Amino acid sequence: MASRGGGLWILRELRRPAGGFGRGFLAGSLLGSTCCALALHWYRQQEQEDRREELPKNSQLEKYGLPMIGTEVRYCTNHVSSYDQAKRTPRWVLEHITKEKVQGSADRKHCKFKPDPNIPALFSATNEDYRSSGWSRGHMAPAGNNKFSLQAMAETFYLSNIVPQNYENNAGFWNRLEMYCRELTQRYENVWVISGPLTLPTSGSDGKKTVAYQVIGESEVAVPTHLYKVILVQESSEPSGLLALGAFVVPNSPIGFDHQLSEYQVDLRDLEKMSGVTFFPALDKARRCRDLCATDSCKLLNLAEFTLYIAGRKVQNASTLHRLEKVMTELQESGIEPDEYLQNLYQKKKQEVELKEAGEGRAARAG
Amino acid sequence: MASRGGGLWILRELRRPAGGFGRGFLAGSLLGSTCCALALHWYRQQEQEDRREELPKNSQLEKYGLPMIGTEVRYCTNHVSSYDQAKRTPRWVLEHITKEKVQGSADRKHCKFKPDPNIPALFSATNEDYRSSGWSRGHMAPAGNNKFSLQAMAETFYLSNIVPQNYENNAGFWNRLEMYCRELTQRYENVWVISGPLTLPTSGSDGKKTVAYQVIGESEVAVPTHLYKVILVQESSEPSGLLALGAFVVPNSPIGFDHQLSEYQVDLRDLEKMSGVTFFPALDKARRCRDLCATDSCKLLNLAEFTLYIAGRKVQNASTLHRLEKVMTELQESGIEPDEYLQNLYQKKKQEVELKEAGEGRAARAG
Repeated sequence: MASRGGGLWILRELRRPAGGFGRGFLAGSLLGSTCCALALHWYRQQEQEDRREELPKNSQLEKYGLPMIGTEVRYCTNHVSSYDQAKRTPRWVLEHITKEKVQGSADRKHCKFKPDPNIPALFSATNEDYRSSGWSRGHMAPAGNNKFSLQAMAETFYLSNIVPQNYENNAGFWNRLEMYCRELTQRYENVWVISGPLTLPTSGSDGKKTVAYQVIGESEVAVPTHLYKVILVQESSEPSGLLALGAFVVPNSPIGFDHQLSEYQVDLRDLEKMSGVTFFPALDKARRCRDLCATDSCKLLNLAEFTLYIAGRKVQNASTLHRLEKVMTELQESGIEPDEYLQNLYQKKKQEVELKEAGEGRAARAG
Repeated sequence: MASRGGGLWILRELRRPAGGFGRGFLAGSLLGSTCCALALHWYRQQEQEDRREELPKNSQLEKYGLPMIGTEVRYCTNHVSSYDQAKRTPRWVLEHITKEKVQGSADRKHCKFKPDPNIPALFSATNEDYRSSGWSRGHMAPAGNNKFSLQAMAETFYLSNIVPQNYENNAGFWNRLEMYCRELTQRYENVWVISGPLTLPTSGSDGKKTVAYQVIGESEVAVPTHLYKVILVQESSEPSGLLALGAFVVPNSPIGFDHQLSEYQVDLRDLEKMSGVTFFPALDKARRCRDLCATDSCKLLNLAEFTLYIAGRKVQNASTLHRLEKVMTELQESGIEPDEYLQNLYQKKKQEVELKEAGEGRAARAG
């Protein structure tokens, strides 16, 4: 990372062999002032490397290898993640999205859920685990954030990017939260999103706190009690570009339209404690970040907007006149008036399908 | 590791830039034949590095750092571990012990449980978490494996090496298991032990499987449902030295003397699936390892042997004649006859304490 990030020269300095201005000096002066978690981490890591070097030359400790837990960072086309081999779910998934990436023609109908070829089978979930489990396959990096590339989209269907998620939550509140993230790309040049599962404790009547979660299938995939998203936005890529951050913890259960996103906002440090994860370690949040919900709206689509959006998607996917009319009838029955955008979409699609069906009719009569 | 391990030349080869005999060839021919998990892991890691290099030059993805989960390998004087920042316990702790290391004068009375200075406070357990929790502070790398060095022993008291453990299990069965590991150093030149906590699911009457565990204190330290040990022994350091391996999963609850260690033996692969950890990845277990319990005894001290051992430790620690006699009276009441070793120890200690008390008497009269 040190060789990429612009402002991470501290880390390069910390990695240099001590001499002249050694690590001690740098640690004291730099970590104290421009401190960020990442610099501290690298400093500690270097200390660990030193300790390892201190092992006797003939040490047998590592002769048959150190235990491996598979948490190394994994790069996909448009998301990067760390996997939890014990829970068979991701631990965190990071994306950087822009308005270019969330637009395009990639279509999820060409994508299939499948085990990540980079995860050993012993530690991987399978589609079979989810079948009849009562839980949906919930994306952490959403398919819809990758419209620019079918490969990027297809990779979000790897089960390493999936957690068992309540169906209604997945199709409803979580879906609207994902749409809000994409909407942010209209207003901000850079949007980073980190998503992941949580298994949080509850307090019993005896005051004892207990973590309890279901595991599903042969692979015993952990069903999270909650899901989190950390959203970081930057107005422009200029060094002075305004930054805003919001962290959200959402229960893995149905959430209706009477709830606002801001109800689920948490302090980032609290989320870090819950999850055991340090987010955006190279960012001095206290000094540089505003609160996302104070800066932006944190407003999800309401029932009418969401229903129109879903109807629009159904209209786009309708392949017969019968289906197309059914979408519009259902919308009418829900008491929501089609807006101009949907009306136009419907008319266009109707012509397209009528032409197609007429053609098929001629072909059938000729055949 | 590649630069240390004798037989790990494959890994060095895999790390070389492809050319001539490239990675593809090596992966195909070597992983297929002398395959070990570690080689496969390094190959996959290299693939990941390649994917990272493919990121566009101006990629903003890592601008503010990748999330950090603190699972990096941490080196202490005589144990090495990976920490679980979410559970505030170790994930695995590896030791290499020999008969030299388990002997010496280092004494646990000079050691204190304390937070590991290398773990960020946000993710660390504290002694306060354990106080009045009903759970003891259970060592993963035991203090008693580090008699050769007070520093090594003191480092096992870092809370990064500790899990909330049932008192009776800690003082009883687990203690005897640790003693068995030390006993193995008498018969084998090299003994490796990997220890860690587990949170395993149970099946409900509805067929659903659930993981449930308590968390204690402000830091919400996870109380494991089970503990594991993987023991690998090698007769001699010669390349042909016989190897034997045993994996054990022990419930975090009292276990009496009517239970044998072999009852808790599990297939290593099953433990790997439960824990999400690959153990001794550089070892071809199927080809090289015998079963520890078929090769060695897997016999823990029985009630009489264990009681004598504990009495011996109490005799050694007795600082007054009164305490010394109390130990021997209690032993008599338990119906266990002192053996010759304990008799001699008692006589020697008695003289030492009598001399000390006589000296103190003279000093008091003179004062």
